[in-house]
Amino acid sequence: MACICFPEDAPATRSGERYNFAAGPAMLPPAVLAQIQDELPDWRGSGQSLLELPFTGAPFKGLMHEAKQDLRDLLTIPSNYRVLFMHGGATCQFGLLPLNLLAPGQSADYLDSGYWAAKAIAEARRHAPLNIIASASEGLRAIAPPEQWRLDPQAGYCHVTSNETANGLQLQHFPELSVPLVADMSSDFLTRPLPVERFGLIYASAQKNLGIAGLCLLIVRDDLLKAPRPGLPSPFSYALQAEQQSRLCTPPTFALYVAALMLRWIGQQGGLTAMASANARKSQLLYQHIDASDLYHCRQQPADRSAINICFHLRDPRLLPDFLREAAATGLLNLQGHAAIGGIRASLYNAMPLAGVKRLVAFMHGFERQHG
Amino acid sequence: MACICFPEDAPATRSGERYNFAAGPAMLPPAVLAQIQDELPDWRGSGQSLLELPFTGAPFKGLMHEAKQDLRDLLTIPSNYRVLFMHGGATCQFGLLPLNLLAPGQSADYLDSGYWAAKAIAEARRHAPLNIIASASEGLRAIAPPEQWRLDPQAGYCHVTSNETANGLQLQHFPELSVPLVADMSSDFLTRPLPVERFGLIYASAQKNLGIAGLCLLIVRDDLLKAPRPGLPSPFSYALQAEQQSRLCTPPTFALYVAALMLRWIGQQGGLTAMASANARKSQLLYQHIDASDLYHCRQQPADRSAINICFHLRDPRLLPDFLREAAATGLLNLQGHAAIGGIRASLYNAMPLAGVKRLVAFMHGFERQHG
Repeated sequence: MACICFPEDAPATRSGERYNFAAGPAMLPPAVLAQIQDELPDWRGSGQSLLELPFTGAPFKGLMHEAKQDLRDLLTIPSNYRVLFMHGGATCQFGLLPLNLLAPGQSADYLDSGYWAAKAIAEARRHAPLNIIASASEGLRAIAPPEQWRLDPQAGYCHVTSNETANGLQLQHFPELSVPLVADMSSDFLTRPLPVERFGLIYASAQKNLGIAGLCLLIVRDDLLKAPRPGLPSPFSYALQAEQQSRLCTPPTFALYVAALMLRWIGQQGGLTAMASANARKSQLLYQHIDASDLYHCRQQPADRSAINICFHLRDPRLLPDFLREAAATGLLNLQGHAAIGGIRASLYNAMPLAGVKRLVAFMHGFERQHG
Repeated sequence: MACICFPEDAPATRSGERYNFAAGPAMLPPAVLAQIQDELPDWRGSGQSLLELPFTGAPFKGLMHEAKQDLRDLLTIPSNYRVLFMHGGATCQFGLLPLNLLAPGQSADYLDSGYWAAKAIAEARRHAPLNIIASASEGLRAIAPPEQWRLDPQAGYCHVTSNETANGLQLQHFPELSVPLVADMSSDFLTRPLPVERFGLIYASAQKNLGIAGLCLLIVRDDLLKAPRPGLPSPFSYALQAEQQSRLCTPPTFALYVAALMLRWIGQQGGLTAMASANARKSQLLYQHIDASDLYHCRQQPADRSAINICFHLRDPRLLPDFLREAAATGLLNLQGHAAIGGIRASLYNAMPLAGVKRLVAFMHGFERQHG
C-alpha cells in the first residue's frame, strides 16, 4: 500500500493563522469545523458517528427537515417552492435542467456572462435548442443588463449565472420575467438576500457557501415539477425527488449535515442581510486597494464586479509565480486564478473573515513595495 | 433558527462500547474515524481542512491517484480496466448503466435475485428492453444458480446483484459469460477477493465498505466506454469521466478521502483474503446461533446466505419491538430489517469486529432465555 504523501507545494510556514481563498471546495468557518470535529465520533449521544447515521432513521430525517426549515427561514422561501437536496454539483444540473424543465424540442433562453455560463450553455445545448439572449462582452468586463436581453416569450425558461466565479462578475439585479427565471447561484448563494419569488428555479453547489462538495441544493417552484421524460433516470428527476423528500436514494448524508451546520451558522451571524453587508465590506476593501495600486489591476467594470470572487491581475504577469509563492508562505492560500483565466483570484465567501482580507491587503501592499 | 434536536429513539444507555449494525451508511473502523477526526482541522500540515481542499490542486489529485492505486493493488485489477469515482450511489447507476452501455433499442439480461435486483430492473426497464434470466425464488430463500440462467447471447450485458442487502442472499460464484457481466456489489464490495477479469463492469456505493454516502465506485473494462448518447448529461458518461480522470466536475472530495482511508485500512488488515476470512467467521458464528435456536430462524438456504447482511426473524414476531429496543439499550444499534422485509438484519461489513458479533450473540442468547 502506498502512503498518502504530503504534497510538495504545501506552504513553507506552518505556524500562524492561514486563510484559504480557494474558489471551492472552500474555507469553512472555524466554529463549524470545530463542531464537526467535536461531534464526529458520537453524534449527540447517539452512539454513532454522524458519518454512520442511517438515512432512513429519525435522527437523519430530523436533520434534513431542520436544514430545510432553516433555509426557508433565511431566504423567506414562499410555500409554493420545494427544496431539493441532490447528489453532485451544479455541473450535473447543466444537463438535468433542460431534461427536467423542457418538453422535447422546446427551447430555453440563456444569458452568456462568462466561463460558467458558457459551460452551462454547452451542456444544455446537447439536450435542447437554445437562444442566447446576450453574449459575453469583449474581455468579459461586464454583464449585459436586462434591458439588452433578447428574450423569447416562448422559451421554457431563462437561465442566468448569478455570479461568474472564474471571471469575477456578478448580476446585481434579477428582473421579473414572463418565463421562469432559472439561476446557477453556486458561488453567491446565501451571500445576500434574494427575491425568491422572481425565480422558477435556483440551484447551487454546496462547496462554496454551504459546506462541502457532493451536494447540490435546488429551490423549485412546484408548478415546474413534471413527470420524468423517457431517458431521465429517476434519481435525477426533480418531481420524483420532491415526492420522496430528496430520499429517493441514499442522500449524501455528511454533506447534508455540514450544510445544516452552515445554515445555522449563517443565521447566528445575523442572516443574509448581515452576510451581504460583511461581503460588501470585504470586497470593497480589496477592490479599493487594487484600484489605488500601480501593480495590480482589475479589468471588470465596477458596476458588475463580484463581491465574492475578486479576480485581478499583475500589470507585470511575470511576477505572478512570486506573488503566489510568497502569499502561500505567509499563509494566504489558493490565490491563483481559474486555470482558463490566469491571474489572481481571491474568493471571499461567507466564511472568509474581514481579518483574512486585511492580511491579504497588507501582503499585497508589501509585495508592491518590493516589486512595484 | 430551530436547533437540531437529539432524537427520541436514541439508546437509553450512553456508556460502554456500541456496535452499529446498520445496512449503510454503516459503521466505520474506529481507527479510520479517529484519523478523520485528527486530520480534520489541518490536512497534513497544509493549513487547510481536508473538507476545504481544492480538487484541482496537487494534494487532492495525489489522494485520488493513490486511492485508485490502492484499489488496483487490493483487487489485482487488470490494466484494461478503468476506475471511476462518480457522485451518488448505486441507485443512480441503475439508469446510467443501460444509458452508458447499450445502443438505443439493445437489450440487457438481468438476474432477479431479490429486493435490490428488482429495483435495478425497474429502473433499467425505463431505458431499455430487458430479459430476466431467472426470477427470484418463492420467499426469496435462494438465488437461481448460473446453470439455470436463460441467457441471451445478443444481450448488451448481463446484470447481477452480488449481495442482496435486504434479503440476506449472496452470489457465491461468478460465471464466465460471453457477454459483459455487470454487478452491483454495493454491499459486498471489498469483502472478499474477486475475479475482476470476469466482469465488464463492477459498481458499488461507498457507504457500506468504502466509507460514506455520496460516492459510487466503478470498475469498467475499457472497451465498454462509448461516446455519450444524446440525452445523457456529460458528468454521467463513463467515457467522459474516464477521459477526465473522474474530475469532469468537482468530485465528492471528502467521501473520496474517506474511501482512501478505508482502502488503506483494508490493506493494513491483510487485504481481501483476510477480510473474507474474518467475514466468514463473524457470519458463521451468528448463523450457527440462529440455526441452533428455537426463538430465531433464518429462511435463506445455507448455500446462498450472505456473509455480510444476516437477515433473520423471531418465530414470534410480536417480540420484535422488545428485541430491537433492548438491543439498542445495550448498545447494539440499527438491527431492524429493511422496511420492505421486516424482521432483524445484522450488517457485518468489514468494519464490524468479531467482538460486536459476540456481543450480539450473547444478547440474543439472553433474550431467548427471557422470552423463549
